[in-house]
Amino acid sequence: MEDSKTAGKSIRCRAAVARKAGEPLSIEELMVAPPESGEVRIRVICSSLCNSDVAFWKMKDPPGYFPRILGHECFGVVESIGENVSEVTVGDAVIPVFMADCGECRDCISSKSNLCSNFPFEVVPWMHRDQKSRFTDLNGETLHHFLHISSFSEYTVVDTVHIVKVDSKIPPDRGCLLSCGATGVGAALKIANVEAGSTVAIFGLGAVGLAVSEGSRLCGAKRIIGVDVNEEKYEIAKKFGVTDFINSRTCGDKSVSQVILEMTDGGADYCFECVGMASLVHEAFACCRKGWGKTVVLGVDRPGSNLTLPSGEVLMSGKTLTGRLFGGLKPKTDVPMLVKRYLDKELELDKFVTHEVKFEDINKAFELLTEGKSLRSIIWMDQNI
Amino acid sequence: MEDSKTAGKSIRCRAAVARKAGEPLSIEELMVAPPESGEVRIRVICSSLCNSDVAFWKMKDPPGYFPRILGHECFGVVESIGENVSEVTVGDAVIPVFMADCGECRDCISSKSNLCSNFPFEVVPWMHRDQKSRFTDLNGETLHHFLHISSFSEYTVVDTVHIVKVDSKIPPDRGCLLSCGATGVGAALKIANVEAGSTVAIFGLGAVGLAVSEGSRLCGAKRIIGVDVNEEKYEIAKKFGVTDFINSRTCGDKSVSQVILEMTDGGADYCFECVGMASLVHEAFACCRKGWGKTVVLGVDRPGSNLTLPSGEVLMSGKTLTGRLFGGLKPKTDVPMLVKRYLDKELELDKFVTHEVKFEDINKAFELLTEGKSLRSIIWMDQNI
Repeated sequence: MEDSKTAGKSIRCRAAVARKAGEPLSIEELMVAPPESGEVRIRVICSSLCNSDVAFWKMKDPPGYFPRILGHECFGVVESIGENVSEVTVGDAVIPVFMADCGECRDCISSKSNLCSNFPFEVVPWMHRDQKSRFTDLNGETLHHFLHISSFSEYTVVDTVHIVKVDSKIPPDRGCLLSCGATGVGAALKIANVEAGSTVAIFGLGAVGLAVSEGSRLCGAKRIIGVDVNEEKYEIAKKFGVTDFINSRTCGDKSVSQVILEMTDGGADYCFECVGMASLVHEAFACCRKGWGKTVVLGVDRPGSNLTLPSGEVLMSGKTLTGRLFGGLKPKTDVPMLVKRYLDKELELDKFVTHEVKFEDINKAFELLTEGKSLRSIIWMDQNI
Repeated sequence: MEDSKTAGKSIRCRAAVARKAGEPLSIEELMVAPPESGEVRIRVICSSLCNSDVAFWKMKDPPGYFPRILGHECFGVVESIGENVSEVTVGDAVIPVFMADCGECRDCISSKSNLCSNFPFEVVPWMHRDQKSRFTDLNGETLHHFLHISSFSEYTVVDTVHIVKVDSKIPPDRGCLLSCGATGVGAALKIANVEAGSTVAIFGLGAVGLAVSEGSRLCGAKRIIGVDVNEEKYEIAKKFGVTDFINSRTCGDKSVSQVILEMTDGGADYCFECVGMASLVHEAFACCRKGWGKTVVLGVDRPGSNLTLPSGEVLMSGKTLTGRLFGGLKPKTDVPMLVKRYLDKELELDKFVTHEVKFEDINKAFELLTEGKSLRSIIWMDQNI
């Protein structure tokens, strides 16, 4: 049981504050207000660093906001709860998720959608319900939230629609990966619903692509073809189930799709675009199997970009193009399912963690990721590493 | 039982020959060779006229070929069989289908695909196996085939991969509609798998769009929104289950997708593009429901055209884009299923037939269709009308 002497009061604690785009975060003390109705305050145990943290850290204009508390993949324990919270209680182990799951709207009730209508996904720098912040620095300045989580703080306030209660048996440094980091796994399990024995092609072997591979492996895919411009990624990717590698820069006269069509005798059953380039979606669609092939778009292209596909192929091929935030996972039901699959030793998470850093060394984690040296770094809030 | 005195011999009979692009067909006598191995010769009882017949009739260059026997929606009786034919026998009632179903390739074995790999869809003017014609006119000139069927002839030779044996209880002038004409019904049943109680939007209320509506009605769709530029189509469309009509020319400042988003409180569960305009696919995708909406492409755009969709919407919306020839129907299993649903009085076919003509008046059927006055005209080979 957590000590709840702090309940109802502001907590003074440390946080890593992003004060200016692209400049090192500063570890500062700040005040975290108590949770309002429908919210909880959690003690963050650890976070993992995701490319989205880096992307928004670099972003000079909105939806980049400063000063801000970044961090959106974490594991925590409920320190106190606001009014009208019955779903979790003090001391519960929780994984916050950037996607809301209100449990009440048409989407949350439906098994088909994970796009909550009451709290639609929006990159806003405040809490949902009152559009205010719960963070104030010691000079009284308001600090912005990030993706409704802001986990680079010893304590943070999160709306219960973003809170998933999980089995506390999962180690915090594995549990935190099942927030945003589960996107690729979800894409294989929930969007594509990869069949055992099938062939998968993954465009881009970053963290998302490797998670797609892990998810596909979990589903029993027989062959997993990884495509990347960096040949070195093959060795790492093998650990995630990738069985074949294509360096898209050395395909000679052939396009990647031609190479895949040839090596699979007609195309991959599932193609995942994890880079965020419209032209790669075209390639992925071209080499997914006629009759039943699914192409799943996971990569984020620049705002306003368009995908182009040949009309005739869409009309005649029986192929499907789709995409969905958070890999189609419904936070409150699917994250606990993934926790269980980890505890049952099916889903392998250990291999995603390449580095661990102390909270005060958080900028090291940013460096490792921007330099392409890490997959996931765990940032521990306490000093026990 | 058919009289098979003619088996193994060429048959002299009448056919409507398309001699020049866009010029009236001429009723001529010609010779129909006996079926080769794997083929059957059928006596055509009646055909229905489809827009594809008209499109290829007007086409001056390949895949337009002349002289040619058009017609690809028909009902017939097996007159004689070639060697190695065990699936049907003389006297069987059959519906030829332009899509092959060999029953042996990976696609035909799979329940997921209807795109036969051994005999892929191609608009060639001859028989599959020897790339020759079975038709010769009385001057010895070879006449081209059309879509492997060429039913505007009293007798025609068809490969068994295109032959579906059906319950002879279905009237010929209803059965013939279940060839290519079943595309729209299939799209609702097999591609979209429309759920009972759902909302459907159909762009284009021609024969395909109305068949989609009939299929959606059959699936229990609650609301079927028809979109067309011709207001008059609403009255006809109501018979096919259309409950709401949008004239896309009179939406004012709003796009059709905006109108549909508003009237459905978030979008249609299924959208079908039946016109063949890339911009309409965009509109259809835009107004299908986030989270689960499916957009099905059925309209044939000009060769080489591209579809454009916003990257971000594909990535985030949970919507699906797909398409498939022949509405995803597997000829040898799904056409008999549709026959049964007609005989069980579930699938309504009568309303598709607007006109009937004698064989010698076949050009009248072409006129009615090109003038937009008919939906389906039945062309009877005998004189009994």
